[in-house]
Amino acid sequence: MTTKVRVAINGYGVIGKRVADAVALQDDMTLVGVADVVADYRVRLAVERGYPVYASAPERRGDMESAGIPVAGTVDELIRQADVVVDCAPKKIGAANKARYGAAGVKAIFQGGEKHELAGYSFVAQVNYEGALNRQSARVVSCNTTALSRVMHALHRRGWVKRARAVLLRRGTDPWESHEHGLINTVVPETRVPSHQGPDAQTVIPDLDITSMAAAGPYNLSHIHFAMVETTQPVSLDELRQALWEAPRIAFVRASDGLVALNSVIELMRDLGRPRGDMWEVAVWEDALAADGRELYLTYQVHNEAIVVPETVDCIRALTGSEPDGAKSIAQTDAALGIRKTFLPATGGPVAAVAATGPSGAF
Amino acid sequence: MTTKVRVAINGYGVIGKRVADAVALQDDMTLVGVADVVADYRVRLAVERGYPVYASAPERRGDMESAGIPVAGTVDELIRQADVVVDCAPKKIGAANKARYGAAGVKAIFQGGEKHELAGYSFVAQVNYEGALNRQSARVVSCNTTALSRVMHALHRRGWVKRARAVLLRRGTDPWESHEHGLINTVVPETRVPSHQGPDAQTVIPDLDITSMAAAGPYNLSHIHFAMVETTQPVSLDELRQALWEAPRIAFVRASDGLVALNSVIELMRDLGRPRGDMWEVAVWEDALAADGRELYLTYQVHNEAIVVPETVDCIRALTGSEPDGAKSIAQTDAALGIRKTFLPATGGPVAAVAATGPSGAF
Amino acid sequence: MTTKVRVAINGYGVIGKRVADAVALQDDMTLVGVADVVADYRVRLAVERGYPVYASAPERRGDMESAGIPVAGTVDELIRQADVVVDCAPKKIGAANKARYGAAGVKAIFQGGEKHELAGYSFVAQVNYEGALNRQSARVVSCNTTALSRVMHALHRRGWVKRARAVLLRRGTDPWESHEHGLINTVVPETRVPSHQGPDAQTVIPDLDITSMAAAGPYNLSHIHFAMVETTQPVSLDELRQALWEAPRIAFVRASDGLVALNSVIELMRDLGRPRGDMWEVAVWEDALAADGRELYLTYQVHNEAIVVPETVDCIRALTGSEPDGAKSIAQTDAALGIRKTFLPATGGPVAAVAATGPSGAF
Amino acid sequence: MTTKVRVAINGYGVIGKRVADAVALQDDMTLVGVADVVADYRVRLAVERGYPVYASAPERRGDMESAGIPVAGTVDELIRQADVVVDCAPKKIGAANKARYGAAGVKAIFQGGEKHELAGYSFVAQVNYEGALNRQSARVVSCNTTALSRVMHALHRRGWVKRARAVLLRRGTDPWESHEHGLINTVVPETRVPSHQGPDAQTVIPDLDITSMAAAGPYNLSHIHFAMVETTQPVSLDELRQALWEAPRIAFVRASDGLVALNSVIELMRDLGRPRGDMWEVAVWEDALAADGRELYLTYQVHNEAIVVPETVDCIRALTGSEPDGAKSIAQTDAALGIRKTFLPATGGPVAAVAATGPSGAF
Repeated sequence: MTTKVRVAINGYGVIGKRVADAVALQDDMTLVGVADVVADYRVRLAVERGYPVYASAPERRGDMESAGIPVAGTVDELIRQADVVVDCAPKKIGAANKARYGAAGVKAIFQGGEKHELAGYSFVAQVNYEGALNRQSARVVSCNTTALSRVMHALHRRGWVKRARAVLLRRGTDPWESHEHGLINTVVPETRVPSHQGPDAQTVIPDLDITSMAAAGPYNLSHIHFAMVETTQPVSLDELRQALWEAPRIAFVRASDGLVALNSVIELMRDLGRPRGDMWEVAVWEDALAADGRELYLTYQVHNEAIVVPETVDCIRALTGSEPDGAKSIAQTDAALGIRKTFLPATGGPVAAVAATGPSGAF
Repeated sequence: MTTKVRVAINGYGVIGKRVADAVALQDDMTLVGVADVVADYRVRLAVERGYPVYASAPERRGDMESAGIPVAGTVDELIRQADVVVDCAPKKIGAANKARYGAAGVKAIFQGGEKHELAGYSFVAQVNYEGALNRQSARVVSCNTTALSRVMHALHRRGWVKRARAVLLRRGTDPWESHEHGLINTVVPETRVPSHQGPDAQTVIPDLDITSMAAAGPYNLSHIHFAMVETTQPVSLDELRQALWEAPRIAFVRASDGLVALNSVIELMRDLGRPRGDMWEVAVWEDALAADGRELYLTYQVHNEAIVVPETVDCIRALTGSEPDGAKSIAQTDAALGIRKTFLPATGGPVAAVAATGPSGAF
Repeated sequence: MTTKVRVAINGYGVIGKRVADAVALQDDMTLVGVADVVADYRVRLAVERGYPVYASAPERRGDMESAGIPVAGTVDELIRQADVVVDCAPKKIGAANKARYGAAGVKAIFQGGEKHELAGYSFVAQVNYEGALNRQSARVVSCNTTALSRVMHALHRRGWVKRARAVLLRRGTDPWESHEHGLINTVVPETRVPSHQGPDAQTVIPDLDITSMAAAGPYNLSHIHFAMVETTQPVSLDELRQALWEAPRIAFVRASDGLVALNSVIELMRDLGRPRGDMWEVAVWEDALAADGRELYLTYQVHNEAIVVPETVDCIRALTGSEPDGAKSIAQTDAALGIRKTFLPATGGPVAAVAATGPSGAF
Repeated sequence: MTTKVRVAINGYGVIGKRVADAVALQDDMTLVGVADVVADYRVRLAVERGYPVYASAPERRGDMESAGIPVAGTVDELIRQADVVVDCAPKKIGAANKARYGAAGVKAIFQGGEKHELAGYSFVAQVNYEGALNRQSARVVSCNTTALSRVMHALHRRGWVKRARAVLLRRGTDPWESHEHGLINTVVPETRVPSHQGPDAQTVIPDLDITSMAAAGPYNLSHIHFAMVETTQPVSLDELRQALWEAPRIAFVRASDGLVALNSVIELMRDLGRPRGDMWEVAVWEDALAADGRELYLTYQVHNEAIVVPETVDCIRALTGSEPDGAKSIAQTDAALGIRKTFLPATGGPVAAVAATGPSGAF
């Protein structure tokens, strides 16, 4: 590729700052700038990283400049320079921004806080990359829906899924937050059943029979899912492992290695030197997988801050058509970020056995 | 009844102290004493309540007396005065105590921390009271298994349950505890699938097809279960509500009344003046119930400190044969404790409709 | 007293519901009603308790009645029947209500969320009861300020306090709350130094030299204070204990009794059968008291939900002049509620020694 | 320096793994290996990093090798190759290891979990580097004591400290831990007053008049200290800022930049790309500093996982005598790690003013 895709990011929060860093790591992309409305430590670090900063709202420009931020222009000036804008604004603001992007003729990627209808296409790279090629816009689905889609697609593409059931336990708020939505010593169940995530996965995998229940808990390190997948035929534990092994962005962890809980897996990410301790992969507990002949059981961790980042990078390529082959885009993104299938040297266990055989397919 | 059943309690911790108070409230029982090994505030409050205190371990008697506790004797002297001993010792200690009870010829009730085989009979009053009549021993199952059994039995007795799946999120530790098993900012999944609770419910309801997954979270106010029950026939939401309404010790709460989470339901218990804020009932979120023609969905709260207390009281009557009719024992226990079907005045909603019709059965 | 004081309560939240119950327990008071704006479980339990319910805001009356709450009238109709209204509305709403109370000519008690200037008198019974006699209004200071005032006054009245320093660690939110102000895995320091509580204590004890720092933590069971009191003369540990013993509403707990943390003291309250597990006393850790000849060190727990309740009851008597003697009012309130100096039988330790001697003064 | 100092690390836990990485970053040091007793993910990542792994206990070697860890030898073989061993074993194990190091004639650095007497010298680089030159052993004091020493020394070296008082709120456990010492919804005060940290700081600064109180809370991201420093003379806020500015390893953060709590400062470390999100600096809240003419008030964050790491690196140079000048060692370590005085571009506030003037001294 001779010309790099020019990417703008509107909203420099939990997702926006990570997408910015990931785009900056891609050989075939240029980050033309990021836009936001605040002047706090987050945006000031964008300056330190050398990202041009724009004002998402013209009326905030003065405050940002008073705080010492060199504001390069307005968000409209930013998107005019871009081939694609990644909207990482808070939930529902993205919808309000759509007209702005349309007027500028820039392609747009929205995040999972927005509805499917906003973009008309809900994207998870390993499921439906090709359908997004050259579209004007797409929605990278939410962290939970991305994880559900990755895991279920790995089984569904083999024709195994008769009906999937999942219980999702969400973190109460994000690690940076100290004033809003925090929970203390409680669990808050969602009263809407099915919770929105199951049906949302159907915007990605339309013929998947899935239902979900959800709740939020008093912690902030990732979500955790408990999935029970009724199968169309007996599927063995080895077959399940193999199917997960062959799917991108699903990695194995084992409680027997001391990775016994959400926090220990995040500690592993810290030890691996991951930026911000991020985990882009769905981490499946290999030693909590089970199969009983009629059903499969999976427990996995979803690092909500990070999981959609590689999907967003792929979606940039799909919308711009810069890479027609989803598998190649995934491979390119994963190599740039350092995405893995296992985080530890093999130990003679079942994953090692699979690893020795090697994956049967592209991944 | 002319002669009261004489009850001894061995172990005055989270469960033991509650069983003691509940026994003291029953017209047909006499609490002959409680035994423990410590001299801290808990046991000293037993003295304040007027319960005779015995030493579970002779070698601890000196420490207890030094702390000002008037020790009435050894645990052997205690059980000699009793018709039935309720063993509320920590997990596995109960098993060690079995020989002692056998030697004394006293009937014994064990708690759910012990295995089914220890007593050979796993008890939940509304499921299998009659089978425990005049037995030498029985096990009141654990908090989670008791809740699963109450809820599933309400559906299973109607022949509705094809297969039940449940995800159980356990509290990390008990509210009194500040040093052990506490979790901070994490969730610890159980790697054994199914988790032990599903199979344990089968010790109570042998022909129930059920599986469960479980995890522990960083909070200490109750457990919460998410159950998905595949049915043998279409069951409507109204039928589900009616079935739950007719089952004892299952009460309704509604998020729309502000009861949105584990902590708000416990706040309700505090406001109701319940001793220790206890909830003996399984609290089902009425407005989170769902039915889709093939499956039923239930979210409910299990107050692990309290739920087995009424079961234990009933089990005392069953073992001693003092009340041959389970329904009568349940009614007697529930009246003494103040167990309810709803905690608030009816509000014109669906439970009110059911309430207006009145339960069809004994409860 | 032949005529009972008629008390209205405006705001039936954390404090209001407790003041209502405490007023209902007083022989010399009648609760004429409570007013609120919501229709959730809390207000509906007021109905169950038999408290007449009024609408604090006329426009909310319809919603309350739709929810099945028999609304007895408007807040103006309520206060017209009262000798004194206790304003327990959220912070700053109390200030807005002042004109209403003035127009009705009813005496008014505000809570610590309001400023000193609103009422012109900041009240803690054992410090300045008499000054509030027959006033038109007074402010019962906040939970933290009440605790600081009780503890510091016990030392200051003896002329011991040269300068007091305290660090206050506040709970993040109240136990009933599950959506706002919750903290997860963090501590939020107050950047204003001194924090407002030290100066606020000076509205109660004007000549007290005190400073404070504060922070909020991710828990909801009480506040904890760490006080370092520089003394005008050497004060021994025994003298410190005696001074605290003689002050009302300060009780002793000991880590050596297993009461090692905020949660274990609350567990003790549950075991004592306290309503809602409330602790009206400041709980001082007796075995964490220290004296080094120039300074005294105190660690104590402040149950923020409950501590101002007895103060409010006394303030009712002071404003109405129904009891001219503060010590008598305190004794009457404490007897009605069951307030204690120790929660456990004496054990031969230092408090027991003090207890054996008996308090030297009125308390 | 032509010959690199050869460093061994015994204990590859929270501190050991960080010291290993920091040593590996120093131009003048060689990491000869790390020793541990477990085979879990932590040690296996040491292998991935290329660190030679030794068995701290010979009887564990088999388990480690079974797990696929190439064990290079025993701890005795490791220390034989080293000029200095950094003992990062759990508390009290270090003391047991002392004889082993003595027998091998290797210099030894112990951590703050050990007593002062074990090494006879308690080390904080900016306070007493020179005294440790060429010693056989030294103790790098604990995280809390290190922070207290840095902050107090900055004031004490100017003769300002009349008496210092501090309240320390510790995290309940470390982020990796999910089973031990976790706290849920409580605060556990230390009953020993003064807590050990104040006196421990006197092992570093013998003539410092300091006292401390402490407690542990239900969170795992850093400690927080609240210090009140009575001064020998009036000290202005500007003088206080300047003193802190001139001290190494004390950095400024501001709540007005959105850095309002422990978690937001850690989020800043993540955004800065720090390894494991570590903060080696004491972070002082600049906008919570206060001075009232007789006393100074400081609120600061102590990242317990990381703060002793640069001290340990300096201590290696001191013991081996490879760098006789403490200021030079500190500068070298800080440059290698990227230690800063502020984390954000200056914003025209008071730190900016100080920064514009520039520090007056070496730091």
